[in-house]
Amino acid sequence: MLVLVLNSGSSSLKYQLMNPQTAEVKATGLCERIGIDGKIVHIANGHKTKTDHNMPSHKEAILNVINILTHGDDKVINSIDDIQAIGHRVVHGGEFFDKSVIVDEDVIAKLESIIPLAPLHNPANIMGMKITRELMPTKPNVAVFDTAFHQTMPASSFMYAIPYEDYKDFGIRKYGFHGTSHYYVSNEAQKLLNKEESKIIVCHLGNGSSVCALKDGKSVETSMGLTPLEGLIMGTRSGDLDPTVVTFLMEKKGMTGDEVNNYLNKKSGLLGVSGISSDLREVIEEAEEGNERAIITIEMMTNRIKKYIASYSAILGGVDAICFTAGIGENANLVREKVCENLEFMGIKLDDEKNAIRSGEAREINSDDSKVKIYVIPTNEEYVIAHDTYELVKG
Amino acid sequence: MLVLVLNSGSSSLKYQLMNPQTAEVKATGLCERIGIDGKIVHIANGHKTKTDHNMPSHKEAILNVINILTHGDDKVINSIDDIQAIGHRVVHGGEFFDKSVIVDEDVIAKLESIIPLAPLHNPANIMGMKITRELMPTKPNVAVFDTAFHQTMPASSFMYAIPYEDYKDFGIRKYGFHGTSHYYVSNEAQKLLNKEESKIIVCHLGNGSSVCALKDGKSVETSMGLTPLEGLIMGTRSGDLDPTVVTFLMEKKGMTGDEVNNYLNKKSGLLGVSGISSDLREVIEEAEEGNERAIITIEMMTNRIKKYIASYSAILGGVDAICFTAGIGENANLVREKVCENLEFMGIKLDDEKNAIRSGEAREINSDDSKVKIYVIPTNEEYVIAHDTYELVKG
Repeated sequence: MLVLVLNSGSSSLKYQLMNPQTAEVKATGLCERIGIDGKIVHIANGHKTKTDHNMPSHKEAILNVINILTHGDDKVINSIDDIQAIGHRVVHGGEFFDKSVIVDEDVIAKLESIIPLAPLHNPANIMGMKITRELMPTKPNVAVFDTAFHQTMPASSFMYAIPYEDYKDFGIRKYGFHGTSHYYVSNEAQKLLNKEESKIIVCHLGNGSSVCALKDGKSVETSMGLTPLEGLIMGTRSGDLDPTVVTFLMEKKGMTGDEVNNYLNKKSGLLGVSGISSDLREVIEEAEEGNERAIITIEMMTNRIKKYIASYSAILGGVDAICFTAGIGENANLVREKVCENLEFMGIKLDDEKNAIRSGEAREINSDDSKVKIYVIPTNEEYVIAHDTYELVKG
Repeated sequence: MLVLVLNSGSSSLKYQLMNPQTAEVKATGLCERIGIDGKIVHIANGHKTKTDHNMPSHKEAILNVINILTHGDDKVINSIDDIQAIGHRVVHGGEFFDKSVIVDEDVIAKLESIIPLAPLHNPANIMGMKITRELMPTKPNVAVFDTAFHQTMPASSFMYAIPYEDYKDFGIRKYGFHGTSHYYVSNEAQKLLNKEESKIIVCHLGNGSSVCALKDGKSVETSMGLTPLEGLIMGTRSGDLDPTVVTFLMEKKGMTGDEVNNYLNKKSGLLGVSGISSDLREVIEEAEEGNERAIITIEMMTNRIKKYIASYSAILGGVDAICFTAGIGENANLVREKVCENLEFMGIKLDDEKNAIRSGEAREINSDDSKVKIYVIPTNEEYVIAHDTYELVKG
């Protein structure tokens, strides 16, 4: 079976054509600047192309993708009929969805009802579904949610300490995100641990970052909340702060609520503190040259991760394995080193040599006498989406 | 020497007349409903009185206090001249003050410049100083700050991950509060530990609550931030939440920024989640009768404390002692029990019998084989204020 995995952003569309039974990737790519001019980066048959396309909307973007997949030098399938199903990444499933579902009118209606919870992401996700249902009316569409995996959290983890009515009436609670990644990585870790009952902490550290605590494979705590702003310090996102900062900024700088949201989501985090870049690699370079603000930025970011690991270990009553994944988690050995530093009292001990090795493979990087396993596990969200799609449509 | 300790709130004034050399308390009391009608609860010579007084402002409140101290059945001194100095509790010292200071025009000007950081508290504190300077012009006044003790925090602890300029231009950073309590309790703990180099965590759990991590007696992390809203779940305060909740409430409920601040400070926390009370005792009673929301409320509150203890242990690289203080910390054995539960992996082990004993004394409540000491230490903020005042004015 071949599944087309789609991840629609407000002006972008990531795609991957994959066989979920073998995990073989036929093609992968990214449509950028949809509605502006339009470019597609396409990787297939071992090479990468970047071409201009007229894409006034996501509809033309998807049509272009299908055309690239089926025509010309980079074609990987003969016709659109070779695609058996479409798997859609959906950012926010609210409290409606605790697992992936086949898309129908009811699913779309529910997703439309929770647009206020993810105003930037859900409209693009819904649009993607509507277009593929129109273009490929005989093929099943599956929605895979970033939030669904965290629906196992107990009320004491997902509720905020605000009036209870506003949780009930407006859905103001923690949802958590990166669910497909936390699921995939914790599942791989469980295989490595080779035990049924497990206490695992996954640190998904990319441009967006979150930590998840898992008991026996189920999410019990996670750092992102109502939106993907809460928790860790990210490329351009502040993560946790005194809620009063929001109204203080509005009052002192004359900002609107939307402007503060934009400020905390797009101008804060590594970029805001360092003044250098949202890209950690550039901040590390400056820190190595002695830039004081860059040094503080890295300290703040890694301390925040360390604090979440410890606090989630406390909730779990101990931890068997800590996993690092995503761009930063898989590649930045400095981050892993600083995060694990001084945690011997909790039985966490990194092996510096193993930590320094770069590899695309899942690997163990703790010292032999560490009570807690430390893993680097490359994530594969597309695989989870393709696999869930396969499981739902196969019969 | 006798020091009059004053703690001015917006419509209240707490006072205590104390000998800082012997810690003897001559009288203590509270003026309530200043500007409304006016009542004074006064405790001296072993008995308590509650009387009505005309108090249109703090000036009349202070005059009434002096009158009660020097006249009638409850008098404890012969004249105002027996008061040698006045110690003022000041909530917010901004970045100006890292220790207590003798009040002069410059101090008052600095405090006025940072009113935006504590709009509810600092005006009352400043007013108190102005009045005692006018009423007792020959007596020294000392300002003791809730924030000063936390000025030892490193930048990586006190900075938020927002654009650096806004820390510099508007002072948007963590300040931390309850400094006199964290200082007093950690100091007592250090005596009990009897070691110079120490890693101590103090949980000040009252109507307002905060946690502080101390390395060698110095504050290195604390849970309250720009304002006393951040951190733990308190009687009516939410503590930590996704900053987006603020703008979400404004948009969905048509609230202004001020209304959201009021909502998060006065209607949230234990009261908001449980719908029962801001008083933990009443929430515990309901939980014992099986009230589900009361049970969740207690779980949320104690889990939050547990998470802070673990995360601060990680920053300290281990912990020698955990201290509980203030109304809830000193009296609620259920809270201490739930907080310490499942932390054996960190060497923390409570002795249930010792924990159940009620006492007004500082005491150890860990089991004999606990690596980490657990103490209950009654706080004494008034003593710190009186003592700092004495040290500054003695010569």
